Amino acid sequence: MKRIKAVYPGSFDPPTNGHLDLIERGSKIFDELVVAVLRNLDKAPLFSVAERRNMLEAMTSGFDNVSVETFDGLTVEYAMTVGASAVLRGIRAISDYEYELQMALMNRKLQPSLETVFMMPAEKYSYISSRLVREVAQLGGNIDCLVPELVAQKLREKMDPALKFVDVERLERKASERKSRSRKKKS
Amino acid sequence: MKRIKAVYPGSFDPPTNGHLDLIERGSKIFDELVVAVLRNLDKAPLFSVAERRNMLEAMTSGFDNVSVETFDGLTVEYAMTVGASAVLRGIRAISDYEYELQMALMNRKLQPSLETVFMMPAEKYSYISSRLVREVAQLGGNIDCLVPELVAQKLREKMDPALKFVDVERLERKASERKSRSRKKKS
Amino acid sequence: MKRIKAVYPGSFDPPTNGHLDLIERGSKIFDELVVAVLRNLDKAPLFSVAERRNMLEAMTSGFDNVSVETFDGLTVEYAMTVGASAVLRGIRAISDYEYELQMALMNRKLQPSLETVFMMPAEKYSYISSRLVREVAQLGGNIDCLVPELVAQKLREKMDPALKFVDVERLERKASERKSRSRKKKS
Amino acid sequence: MKRIKAVYPGSFDPPTNGHLDLIERGSKIFDELVVAVLRNLDKAPLFSVAERRNMLEAMTSGFDNVSVETFDGLTVEYAMTVGASAVLRGIRAISDYEYELQMALMNRKLQPSLETVFMMPAEKYSYISSRLVREVAQLGGNIDCLVPELVAQKLREKMDPALKFVDVERLERKASERKSRSRKKKS
Amino acid sequence: MKRIKAVYPGSFDPPTNGHLDLIERGSKIFDELVVAVLRNLDKAPLFSVAERRNMLEAMTSGFDNVSVETFDGLTVEYAMTVGASAVLRGIRAISDYEYELQMALMNRKLQPSLETVFMMPAEKYSYISSRLVREVAQLGGNIDCLVPELVAQKLREKMDPALKFVDVERLERKASERKSRSRKKKS
Amino acid sequence: MKRIKAVYPGSFDPPTNGHLDLIERGSKIFDELVVAVLRNLDKAPLFSVAERRNMLEAMTSGFDNVSVETFDGLTVEYAMTVGASAVLRGIRAISDYEYELQMALMNRKLQPSLETVFMMPAEKYSYISSRLVREVAQLGGNIDCLVPELVAQKLREKMDPALKFVDVERLERKASERKSRSRKKKS
Repeated sequence: MKRIKAVYPGSFDPPTNGHLDLIERGSKIFDELVVAVLRNLDKAPLFSVAERRNMLEAMTSGFDNVSVETFDGLTVEYAMTVGASAVLRGIRAISDYEYELQMALMNRKLQPSLETVFMMPAEKYSYISSRLVREVAQLGGNIDCLVPELVAQKLREKMDPALKFVDVERLERKASERKSRSRKKKS
Repeated sequence: MKRIKAVYPGSFDPPTNGHLDLIERGSKIFDELVVAVLRNLDKAPLFSVAERRNMLEAMTSGFDNVSVETFDGLTVEYAMTVGASAVLRGIRAISDYEYELQMALMNRKLQPSLETVFMMPAEKYSYISSRLVREVAQLGGNIDCLVPELVAQKLREKMDPALKFVDVERLERKASERKSRSRKKKS
Repeated sequence: MKRIKAVYPGSFDPPTNGHLDLIERGSKIFDELVVAVLRNLDKAPLFSVAERRNMLEAMTSGFDNVSVETFDGLTVEYAMTVGASAVLRGIRAISDYEYELQMALMNRKLQPSLETVFMMPAEKYSYISSRLVREVAQLGGNIDCLVPELVAQKLREKMDPALKFVDVERLERKASERKSRSRKKKS
Repeated sequence: MKRIKAVYPGSFDPPTNGHLDLIERGSKIFDELVVAVLRNLDKAPLFSVAERRNMLEAMTSGFDNVSVETFDGLTVEYAMTVGASAVLRGIRAISDYEYELQMALMNRKLQPSLETVFMMPAEKYSYISSRLVREVAQLGGNIDCLVPELVAQKLREKMDPALKFVDVERLERKASERKSRSRKKKS
Repeated sequence: MKRIKAVYPGSFDPPTNGHLDLIERGSKIFDELVVAVLRNLDKAPLFSVAERRNMLEAMTSGFDNVSVETFDGLTVEYAMTVGASAVLRGIRAISDYEYELQMALMNRKLQPSLETVFMMPAEKYSYISSRLVREVAQLGGNIDCLVPELVAQKLREKMDPALKFVDVERLERKASERKSRSRKKKS
Repeated sequence: MKRIKAVYPGSFDPPTNGHLDLIERGSKIFDELVVAVLRNLDKAPLFSVAERRNMLEAMTSGFDNVSVETFDGLTVEYAMTVGASAVLRGIRAISDYEYELQMALMNRKLQPSLETVFMMPAEKYSYISSRLVREVAQLGGNIDCLVPELVAQKLREKMDPALKFVDVERLERKASERKSRSRKKKS
């Protein structure tokens, strides 16, 4: 009998109800499931990697065979390092289907022995993405049905009124930069 | 540790290299994989259910944890009967993607505890379907790279020249039926 | 102020919870909504046009501005006849999206003054189609969550065990036809 | 300098304005373009192969480098026989895109030296297909903007009122067959 | 009889012939249509919100039941504030279809009583987007058939040669920044 | 007999095996093929235009009728300048299909006499894009099967360890900027 370990990689910025639903489904199919948070240096995330890891650990504490880790570099190399034989990805009815297949084929080329396995979250989560959750939260919308309660609370903390000022500031800074460039050009 | 059994249902009329590729991938992820040939009374198949089962058994004899069965009725009920916790489906880059998701959601509604798991065949098989194989064979094309050797041989036997006469006969019969109906109408 | 009348055309064989959901949504947007059952002579339907009309009338009796009619011929001509200025169509996340747009463009060419308006059923109905409902019912599956109770009851009546014998009979008849054709060919 | 010959295969039942548009575009790219009508014995076409060939010849008489032929069997084998190095296919914004790619990959497998080249018809023809034209004509709709005048005339001839009686007859025949089967079953 | 008010939200940077076509169609279906320009602080738009509002007001002055407003925050909250019961969205044959459905489902979750209604612009506008119009204008292409005359004029004013210098300047600045960072790194 | 010249435009940052495959296919269909590297001032490319041109020239030196050029501005204007009658574009099974059609329609509007011709790269290259190649290279993955050897070597030179420090630096700089903005805000 085999012991199948799978990696569920992602940014999880923030983790959503759709992620949690998929983790539960994956935990029933695989002997061991590692939720792997990508440390992406390039982007300016809303939550730090540590915050995301903590939220995911709290959300998945009820699943015996689920652990949370962080990684950087290629997903396939991380998966080989931890001895996984599968990568779990969610595939939503409304979604970046073609991007998922493209990634899966690229990962297969990079590491032929590693299989990508797709599962579907509940259809009620088919429209939820971390990006949409961030946008709704930033505009003051109610995100209670989109993310677990602990994530909703963290999101509300991040979205304090002060943040809006920053945006205005940035906009004004941009505008003044543009004007100064424009002046230089004319002179 | 869990023992995960999956069902890979289909018509397999005939089984193709794409099916074989997916069976091999599934056999690595699941502890036990049942290739389940649908006994569909409604359609006029090219190969009988027994022929398809025999071909699949020969093709999969090298996999210890793969067996071949036949079933009718709902896939989800068959899966529950044999104690499976997953249904395996191939998802091809070029394919009936939306139909697959629709079936998966319907199956989940009918049997919430059963998960549909999607895997991708090798991209070199992405355009192969049983229907296309039948069409190419019927037109005398070379199907050696599309199906295992034993299936290719069986296909060539089915496609003897006599078959073409049948089609002409059927066409003529249809034409004469139409004429006779047309005559009735006028009289 | 305008009085906007819309036609919601379809086969409704049988009407589903997805249809009912869309009718409710349409009744809120339009002043008057005509559910129009297509009398399609070509196909062999499961329910007669009269049965479908009766079921739809029972299902929509609670909506003041919804009526049920039957029609044949072109949808656009029927819509003009009853003075409608819009055709309502459901557009599902998982569905024949391109076919819907193709029909809408053709209808616009045939009748430029008539607009096609798309609305989305609840996502929990995104996978339900009349065809899938018929298939599940024919295989003895539970269709209670897929159609209104009165439709479920009618479906169960249609699906009495006798029906299965018919299929076997038909199959046997087909098989014997094939054999007799094959004999003719050889002689 | 090369002399590139291309085959534009199809059923053309009937040829449409979209087909004509693509033929014109192809005639500008290729040195020689063969419009190839598939002789498909299996289906019951609306127009005979000879009728379709005649209509296409009349429609394309103004193009010096376009000819019309008929063929059966595999498209790739026909293309090799006539010395073509490309197969021309239309690719519409709203259409069976994936089917086209699947066929192109299968044809490449069967004959690697033959390239499939896709061109787009004018967007005003993006929703026109032979099937839709047949359906609109059968329901008495105006097909003047969908097909060349000579095809429109031929379609009107085919669609004489007598045809409708046939359909009713067929339906009644089907119904009586069903009843007789049902009676047999009970006896 | 109901009075149905709809909101047509967007960036309209700039408004195109496709937008105008949809506004005309929407004005025939709804009793009142509010074209709502999103004030998005984050992005650096080509036209200011005031400019976009002015252009839209000039373009829609001929429609009695169309008004132009600006808003920020969530679309659904703005729609509720103005008493709308529907959100109008264009759905193009070639377009971000899945994104539209995802937004519609998210909006329904945030405000279940608000319906998203999709209509199709004329197929001749199916490829026009504000982004493409901006790109063509920036490269000096002819945008006369893509936007109303007044928008074309405003675009030509924005695209004076001076703008190109800015880009070169920005590029050079970026390059020098990179070099200076690279130097720091080495030192 | 015609002399058909085609332009194959793109960023080619870097050129991949998929690009090379398409160039080879295009060289068989057209009398002359110009690979045209877009000089895009706006973006910060990985390779300079000169580097990309050099790599493409080395890759295509074996094709007699292929040349490499650079251009800026509208593709259709460049194509007219060099006397081309077609634009060649790759169309992949998994890809930005709709974007390609949208561009083709826009280009047709801008220059009706110019045809866009789509060809398919080998399916084994269906998932390769310049962007994915850059990402894999940046993460230290093996890109030997994705690009020609000479491109792989150039990529490895670009990806020296020093680059990673830059990213960390940039991140730290961003973080400190954010803090200082935050402090300003509070003060």
